[in-house]
Amino acid sequence: MITLEQTIAAIRPCDPEAVAEARAHQDRLTKPRGSLGVLEDVAVRLAGIAAVSPPPVPAPAALAIFAADHGVHAQGVSPWPQEVTQQMVGNFLAGGAVANAFANQVGATVRVVDVGVAADLPAAPGLAIRKVAYGTADLSQGPAMTREQAVAALEAGIETARELVAEGARCLVTGDMGIANTTASAALVCAFTGRDAAEVTGRGTGVDDETLARKIEVIRRALHVNGLIREGGSTGAGGGSAGADGTGGGGAPGDGAGAVPGLEILAAVGGLEHAAIAGFILGGASLRVPVILDGVIAGSAALAAAALAPDALDHCVAGHRSAEPGHTVALAHLGLRPLVELELRLGEGTGGLLAHPLVCAAARVLHEVATFDSAGVTEKES
Amino acid sequence: MITLEQTIAAIRPCDPEAVAEARAHQDRLTKPRGSLGVLEDVAVRLAGIAAVSPPPVPAPAALAIFAADHGVHAQGVSPWPQEVTQQMVGNFLAGGAVANAFANQVGATVRVVDVGVAADLPAAPGLAIRKVAYGTADLSQGPAMTREQAVAALEAGIETARELVAEGARCLVTGDMGIANTTASAALVCAFTGRDAAEVTGRGTGVDDETLARKIEVIRRALHVNGLIREGGSTGAGGGSAGADGTGGGGAPGDGAGAVPGLEILAAVGGLEHAAIAGFILGGASLRVPVILDGVIAGSAALAAAALAPDALDHCVAGHRSAEPGHTVALAHLGLRPLVELELRLGEGTGGLLAHPLVCAAARVLHEVATFDSAGVTEKES
Repeated sequence: MITLEQTIAAIRPCDPEAVAEARAHQDRLTKPRGSLGVLEDVAVRLAGIAAVSPPPVPAPAALAIFAADHGVHAQGVSPWPQEVTQQMVGNFLAGGAVANAFANQVGATVRVVDVGVAADLPAAPGLAIRKVAYGTADLSQGPAMTREQAVAALEAGIETARELVAEGARCLVTGDMGIANTTASAALVCAFTGRDAAEVTGRGTGVDDETLARKIEVIRRALHVNGLIREGGSTGAGGGSAGADGTGGGGAPGDGAGAVPGLEILAAVGGLEHAAIAGFILGGASLRVPVILDGVIAGSAALAAAALAPDALDHCVAGHRSAEPGHTVALAHLGLRPLVELELRLGEGTGGLLAHPLVCAAARVLHEVATFDSAGVTEKES
Repeated sequence: MITLEQTIAAIRPCDPEAVAEARAHQDRLTKPRGSLGVLEDVAVRLAGIAAVSPPPVPAPAALAIFAADHGVHAQGVSPWPQEVTQQMVGNFLAGGAVANAFANQVGATVRVVDVGVAADLPAAPGLAIRKVAYGTADLSQGPAMTREQAVAALEAGIETARELVAEGARCLVTGDMGIANTTASAALVCAFTGRDAAEVTGRGTGVDDETLARKIEVIRRALHVNGLIREGGSTGAGGGSAGADGTGGGGAPGDGAGAVPGLEILAAVGGLEHAAIAGFILGGASLRVPVILDGVIAGSAALAAAALAPDALDHCVAGHRSAEPGHTVALAHLGLRPLVELELRLGEGTGGLLAHPLVCAAARVLHEVATFDSAGVTEKES
């Protein structure tokens, strides 16, 4: 098995030559310059990821749904019982969830990965058991994971990415299932961006005002108890230089301050699925395969991935903007513009899947569209 | 051939029973209520259009690109030579345009319809010749079309919709090609919404400051010379009651004032492709087939269609929001929320095509997703 350290060492930024070539080619195509808006940037990024222009159309896609439970559920942060995590895994495997319907629509395969469900799951086709623990510890009482657990979950994500690419996937889509995981996401966003819990905490899959207030309080306590909030309230995110083992350091991008390395933040307030998704991103990036990020769980995991290996972000496309406020904060911090903005707040990878045809469309333009010269179309007067 | 009058008479609103059934079914599915955001409304609307729940997945789609030229091109409102309209028709037929690439991505067929290109086009597979005129007259000097031309173009659109549905299309996507057609679009938006030209006029496929100022002046002149602007500058849009022939009246929705019937506005400042797209919308609506609207040309045509038959709007889905300011004004007036917002400003139907997988995904949810009961998933505590 390839380690986290080896994976990080293999990650390179977008290839500048392919980027320049794609941009120049795009400007010769029979369309007004810039008229494809955000998709022009996506096409150029795909060329940079693949290090060739035009880049391959990134299909088929594979969705990995990382499932795990959360000790913080005991704090009453979600109206859903914890066993729904396990029940929904069954629903995914039976093909009955929204993620399955969307995967069918875009021709993606679905892999469910148990990295931390609080029960033993029976073996089933489509399910990979890479369980690190039976759920995290309660992040409001201390670290959610040990450093070793976080690394193991990261490596489960890396392994999943490598496996799916070996099986033929040319695009990876992040998915998640874990009752209470928007609480861990909000805590990660606070810790990596320095924002207050009230700014980044939302209603998840539907909490009332009282639960929302409790959720914010729980997140503040988690940041405090884990030493991620300083006197006066500012968080101590990211920014440390890389540790000697290559895995411990790296600040959040654009955040020069703070003393806590990314891996420690991830272990302290992340979920096992957050760590696995961060690894999945690193794994895709190391293989130069584009990774479409789903919503706030992926966004907060991407903050961790970027802290471990900033160049990994070059290989990511933000699939959608979720209704959770923390997601918008994370996307802004990462400098990513989402493709789909439809007020989804479901998770599972649903928003990422919806973006896949848009990403493919962007790549197709570079392959299939004629140039002004080849089509005999007159260019505009400048 | 079915007439405009017969088509309008056949249009009904969304079926309320199917709407209620779809909404109730959606709330039993294994997802938090409302968590699919805007797509939940799309799914419900599809049920209302088809008058059955769950509604058929609206695939395959057919794109119709209505091509026409504009007399107002002589006023210097576009940096592109007029012959580009004809050249791009050739590009569509050769499969070399962005619309072709996007159609390939979503599995849509492409039909190009000449309703007013200023040249005789050679017959070709995929091209329908339904030419009404060799371009419009200059809308800044008087009416762009006669009433008869506008009706003929509307009926060309209706006929195209009927033909594509007869050939198996289960979703219609509007497309356009016509150098200078954002000028006619902006004039239509002004006339139907009462907004000033400066608020709704954009840079189209890329005009400089000087041309933009000229374009605004030309649109103001067009509104004035065609009696669509009153003393003091307010436009005299919509609002007339339906004419005796069923085609002359109907105000823009939400606009009770004004005295000029929709058909007269369309003829005065519209393009032949705008009239054809309005007819295409009416044709799809009369057959209860969903119509995905592309950008500002479709948005302004939809204002005309809604003036002729307000219930037609029930059968429309706004595919995307273009970068043209007039499109946002038109969408707000129509009460439509676009699915894709990626700053596209290309036309051809490109934005509408990108929305098609999203529309299909919304429909699939109602077919494929399990209920809490059937999947054995516990519902949240209320």
